[in-house]
Amino acid sequence: MPRVDVSYTLSTTTTHPFDVAVARVREELADEGFGVLCEVDVQATLKNKLGVDREPYLILGACNPQLAHGALNAESELGVLLPCNVVVYRQDGETHISAVNAEQMLSLVGNDELSETAAEVRRRLASVVEKAAAA
Amino acid sequence: MPRVDVSYTLSTTTTHPFDVAVARVREELADEGFGVLCEVDVQATLKNKLGVDREPYLILGACNPQLAHGALNAESELGVLLPCNVVVYRQDGETHISAVNAEQMLSLVGNDELSETAAEVRRRLASVVEKAAAA
Repeated sequence: MPRVDVSYTLSTTTTHPFDVAVARVREELADEGFGVLCEVDVQATLKNKLGVDREPYLILGACNPQLAHGALNAESELGVLLPCNVVVYRQDGETHISAVNAEQMLSLVGNDELSETAAEVRRRLASVVEKAAAA
Repeated sequence: MPRVDVSYTLSTTTTHPFDVAVARVREELADEGFGVLCEVDVQATLKNKLGVDREPYLILGACNPQLAHGALNAESELGVLLPCNVVVYRQDGETHISAVNAEQMLSLVGNDELSETAAEVRRRLASVVEKAAAA
């Protein structure tokens, strides 16, 4: 079977330092109606648990309440895939911003009632990534 | 293309009340080496943001640090799909426990280096769901 050439992420790099990129992502998420429901500081967690050194890596779990409510009504188990993450990390001297591609992720579910919401979330998170990365 | 008959969740119902099921899931996650890095009380969040009433629904974001560290080394962007969620919710008079099927989820990534970790996480979360639900 041919590999489908669509990524599970919406990604870019930015000239912003890490902390600026994180702040910009938070602003753009708010502008698109997403609250940040949970955060994982991967660097701190892995330092604390394993004693390993990694570059900065932050996971922001974003949720648009209206879209989540409708999606959960259509698909009770969907919480295993929520919230939708945007990550900011440093690698190879660059700051990366990446959001989950909600359309790809929700294709796993196989519930056509989610198609419209998935496309809407993808569109909004693509906008967040693009605007947050802009100079 | 035929629909692949594999679910994105590992699910069951339990006779436990909601709060007991949540406590059991936490215990079993710890036994399998998972910390809970974030939690989303969906019922409270949607009541707060939208004023809607839903039955209890909790998302627990679980992470095994060793497995996550190895997986992130193999796939930098993987954070958009982490942590792995286990949800507990009430619906139709029953308590449901459901974990993400890590093998299905990570099939989105298309990175063969993740296969072994995905299978291991799937096995452990299946055990968590089964044992937490047991009478």
